[in-house]
Amino acid sequence: MTDIIERYFDRIFPICRSITGNGVRETLKIISEIVPLKIYEIPSHTEVFDWNVPKEWNIKDAYILTPDGRKICDFKKHNLHVVNYSIPVHKKITFEELNQHLHTLPHKPNAIPYVTSYYKENWGFCISYDEYKTLPKEGIYEVFIDSSLEAGSLTYADVILEGERKDEILISTYVCHPSMANNELSGPLVSMFLYQKLAALKNREYTYRFVFIPETIGALVYLKQHGEYLKKHCKAGYVVTCIGDKGIFHYKLSKYGNTLADKAAIHTLKHSRKPFRIIPFFPGGSDERQYCSPAFNLPVGSLMRTPYREYPEYHTSLDNKEFISFKAIQESIEMYFQILLTLECNDKYINLFPYGEPQLGKRGLYVGDLSRDQVMQIMYILQYSDGMNDLIDIAERIKVDIKDLHPLVQLLIEKKLLNNGSN
Amino acid sequence: MTDIIERYFDRIFPICRSITGNGVRETLKIISEIVPLKIYEIPSHTEVFDWNVPKEWNIKDAYILTPDGRKICDFKKHNLHVVNYSIPVHKKITFEELNQHLHTLPHKPNAIPYVTSYYKENWGFCISYDEYKTLPKEGIYEVFIDSSLEAGSLTYADVILEGERKDEILISTYVCHPSMANNELSGPLVSMFLYQKLAALKNREYTYRFVFIPETIGALVYLKQHGEYLKKHCKAGYVVTCIGDKGIFHYKLSKYGNTLADKAAIHTLKHSRKPFRIIPFFPGGSDERQYCSPAFNLPVGSLMRTPYREYPEYHTSLDNKEFISFKAIQESIEMYFQILLTLECNDKYINLFPYGEPQLGKRGLYVGDLSRDQVMQIMYILQYSDGMNDLIDIAERIKVDIKDLHPLVQLLIEKKLLNNGSN
Amino acid sequence: MTDIIERYFDRIFPICRSITGNGVRETLKIISEIVPLKIYEIPSHTEVFDWNVPKEWNIKDAYILTPDGRKICDFKKHNLHVVNYSIPVHKKITFEELNQHLHTLPHKPNAIPYVTSYYKENWGFCISYDEYKTLPKEGIYEVFIDSSLEAGSLTYADVILEGERKDEILISTYVCHPSMANNELSGPLVSMFLYQKLAALKNREYTYRFVFIPETIGALVYLKQHGEYLKKHCKAGYVVTCIGDKGIFHYKLSKYGNTLADKAAIHTLKHSRKPFRIIPFFPGGSDERQYCSPAFNLPVGSLMRTPYREYPEYHTSLDNKEFISFKAIQESIEMYFQILLTLECNDKYINLFPYGEPQLGKRGLYVGDLSRDQVMQIMYILQYSDGMNDLIDIAERIKVDIKDLHPLVQLLIEKKLLNNGSN
Repeated sequence: MTDIIERYFDRIFPICRSITGNGVRETLKIISEIVPLKIYEIPSHTEVFDWNVPKEWNIKDAYILTPDGRKICDFKKHNLHVVNYSIPVHKKITFEELNQHLHTLPHKPNAIPYVTSYYKENWGFCISYDEYKTLPKEGIYEVFIDSSLEAGSLTYADVILEGERKDEILISTYVCHPSMANNELSGPLVSMFLYQKLAALKNREYTYRFVFIPETIGALVYLKQHGEYLKKHCKAGYVVTCIGDKGIFHYKLSKYGNTLADKAAIHTLKHSRKPFRIIPFFPGGSDERQYCSPAFNLPVGSLMRTPYREYPEYHTSLDNKEFISFKAIQESIEMYFQILLTLECNDKYINLFPYGEPQLGKRGLYVGDLSRDQVMQIMYILQYSDGMNDLIDIAERIKVDIKDLHPLVQLLIEKKLLNNGSN
Repeated sequence: MTDIIERYFDRIFPICRSITGNGVRETLKIISEIVPLKIYEIPSHTEVFDWNVPKEWNIKDAYILTPDGRKICDFKKHNLHVVNYSIPVHKKITFEELNQHLHTLPHKPNAIPYVTSYYKENWGFCISYDEYKTLPKEGIYEVFIDSSLEAGSLTYADVILEGERKDEILISTYVCHPSMANNELSGPLVSMFLYQKLAALKNREYTYRFVFIPETIGALVYLKQHGEYLKKHCKAGYVVTCIGDKGIFHYKLSKYGNTLADKAAIHTLKHSRKPFRIIPFFPGGSDERQYCSPAFNLPVGSLMRTPYREYPEYHTSLDNKEFISFKAIQESIEMYFQILLTLECNDKYINLFPYGEPQLGKRGLYVGDLSRDQVMQIMYILQYSDGMNDLIDIAERIKVDIKDLHPLVQLLIEKKLLNNGSN
Repeated sequence: MTDIIERYFDRIFPICRSITGNGVRETLKIISEIVPLKIYEIPSHTEVFDWNVPKEWNIKDAYILTPDGRKICDFKKHNLHVVNYSIPVHKKITFEELNQHLHTLPHKPNAIPYVTSYYKENWGFCISYDEYKTLPKEGIYEVFIDSSLEAGSLTYADVILEGERKDEILISTYVCHPSMANNELSGPLVSMFLYQKLAALKNREYTYRFVFIPETIGALVYLKQHGEYLKKHCKAGYVVTCIGDKGIFHYKLSKYGNTLADKAAIHTLKHSRKPFRIIPFFPGGSDERQYCSPAFNLPVGSLMRTPYREYPEYHTSLDNKEFISFKAIQESIEMYFQILLTLECNDKYINLFPYGEPQLGKRGLYVGDLSRDQVMQIMYILQYSDGMNDLIDIAERIKVDIKDLHPLVQLLIEKKLLNNGSN
């Protein structure tokens, strides 16, 4: 399993992605080998709430020739060398002029920083501070960026995996980050293989919506097109990001921390026997801040490993293959899958024999047929399936994993003691 | 007082009770000497929600004759020796066959277990493991159970002690357990003498309903007949069980722990200066699980001493006179009585002079007439008797016993500063 | 600043105040030099809810001549020597008779107690226990109180400082205590200079109502006349009392501790870097118990330093100029002012671009234009200005002072991203 993940990583990682352009298209095409994506193109300049879809950006090559004859910031060696969304440029300039277009990180001298300029036309190069220090202050530099910034379109994709209900679970990740590994190739990789596991599941209760978009502007486009539908049907959602490093799990709550997304994630993490941390919502971060914005306020949280900004390699060339772990990615897929299974198990079931206890013995549901613990769990389910509690609530009350209660729920449905919830 | 309790214990204990039959009738007849019970008979096979009233069971004698000539499992020596609801049997069998009908407790070798088979026709004997080990494996055993299981009726009783209001407090205990002391002769004994104390009380606010029933099926019958009335009028209730041993008090909360029954019990225990524990509702236990079932959800908790299953003597012949204490029983009666007095004192009183403070001085309610503490308590009562709080809420706010506030409430009612609540 | 406060203290302190009479009038006249008071007279015997305005009391002189020729309890030396509201008396009596009219504090032997008899006609003198011990038991005493208790009126004052909104903040203090410093000249002094600071503020959001009344009966009169209006318009209020000593701040919560008055005071104290204590409402104390009475239940708390009854000098001649500190009074004015500024900053603002994030960069609201912290705070404001939270809620969520958020709110209003709340 980790092998195939790694093979896809190796193919997708080198592509120069941005919020528009062929890098996104190429990436979505590869993902389509696993996930039957539907791909959309939104023309440049389309109005999106307070925003506009920007011009489409593409790039073929870029480099700097130094006065002492070196070729540096070679786009073909690392696409982070070019400021993302740089306009084309080809000229000879002094170091002084060049210097205003160079980005370095003096505190991380061996890292090429990741810099973008989506909404302000500009050009620039990113270079490690170690290399920067070797540049001659005298002489003439030749800068070359073979890019285009023209009317075109923004590309995104989604896929719907239908279930018994129209109610939906949203899985959203982003495909606009160029060659970085944790932030953000881990999100698309986890989403791809999570889709695969889920598609193999029979009798899904929920309908699943997987969304592969450029961050921010893509989420806004998506909400423009699907926001009202999601307000009605999305019962829980997760933004999948920073999910490939070796750190412990971090679950970022939705805006008020009180949604089904939060309840299912926390319940699952608590019963996972893995260390984890719950962090409150904050309006920085990724697309959860669009999904949770006041007009939509969707029940969307985010399960990560080490969150953005909390690891020093974040947004640099050091966020690379060495920084992540394919074993961690596989574990992340499994954890997300377990959260979805929690949601699948959950429902507000209703006791159909609410007048006192139903007679369990005559239905083969008493001690002897089942263990004493199971009989007690059945009694809890019947007592609290009174319209006030869903199955997570009951599992939390008994301090057991919802997955241990679910077979008993199935048995009770079979015995016609419980209805099967929302169906 | 303990003398009379002990005399009743000695008379009621030896009777072989079950969920139906003459043992219950005999027991209720003795209880009627103290409590003016109204006794009901419900015919066998009557439908009761998901259940049916079982056939009536009676037994005259039972024993086993061993190959080596001993008479063992003699019903006349201890009625636990026979599985409760055993069908009649009289035959000669091998040890091998007999062994399938013998019940022992290897971990409590000197205890006869308590076993029932109400809803599955069967017969059996219960024997201490120590005695079991002496049985010859060879030879022929004669087994004899002189019982009858025939159409008849289920017997239960109740009594209403009327008060000022139609609102009711429910006291429910069960009379189906044969010769065991804590579980369950303590419950009927406490209920009997609690009734007596309460009947002696003048000017009861609440109407009290005392119920003596066989466990589970009796509670279901009772709810079938009175459940809708109780939903309207029952304001608090308690299942009286396991209340005679020397352990500390345990109060088992009602289903959501937020009822008047819980509030009154907790407040009373807190001010009792006795050690106690609050335990959450769980759907095992006694008839509270019928009363709290989704269709009724009555405000019913249970004050116990050591709860069922938590003491090793539970459901064995070791739960006997030595295990309990008549002093403890008397203390339990008093604690239940104090809870009822808390309820009697309590009400959502309404300040009749809500526009600023009424002038206390001109009514003889100021410092000089009363202590400074009392004046302050009066001021609390007037401030918070605003329709939001009952008197327990106010007492909890000031951290005093409601019984210390009640005379002041009476004074305020007399002075026409407060209305007398629900009347 | 402390100089001018001290000068007013020195002028107002010696005046013999009571709940009616010329002492109150004289006091209000001096306060009028700073605060443009509107002064009201309410005739004696006017009905006020459960009360009546008492007769007006005035006093010119009072003393006792001892058998050994000393003039003691001289009203002209200390007005606490006469029981407040003493009826006129002039007669010669024995020590035995006199003794029934003398008040002392054996546990504070050098203190003259403060005693009143507003609603029971009586006369009396207050004397330090040290001096009391020197009185001869034999011989004839001459007692003289040149007072009058006649139909007249009760005097109080208020002033309205108008703001943008009709919604009001109430500042209430009392002017009935004679020569004591902390309780109660500190309250009127803080209110006077708080008014002055507030009047100097441009663009007040709230309308402010400052009330100078005799305690209890004055508050009742005020509620009789303005209570229904206050129920509609008063959004927060504070009783200003015991605010001049060197103790730490104590904030007494409103009746249920859940009002805007409480929220604003607690938020301000938390960000003041000064030690403070929050105490629950209790129905003793000052006029908050009238304001919070059931029929009005106004959102009124009280910021004090050392509360009444908690300092030994309380209600004695030892509560004098030495006991208070003008620096403390100035700090109290500032703390009250900061609470009012918190209220001024606060509102339930509404994000006008609730569909995803508005584009901050094109409005000069992104990193570069503002600090990273400020951008994050803007994002919090936009996310949570969703109709559920006021600005204090948002500040509490981020754990910053509302005053740090307010300039950002102003910026967002200017940029038309936020509406300006209730206006």
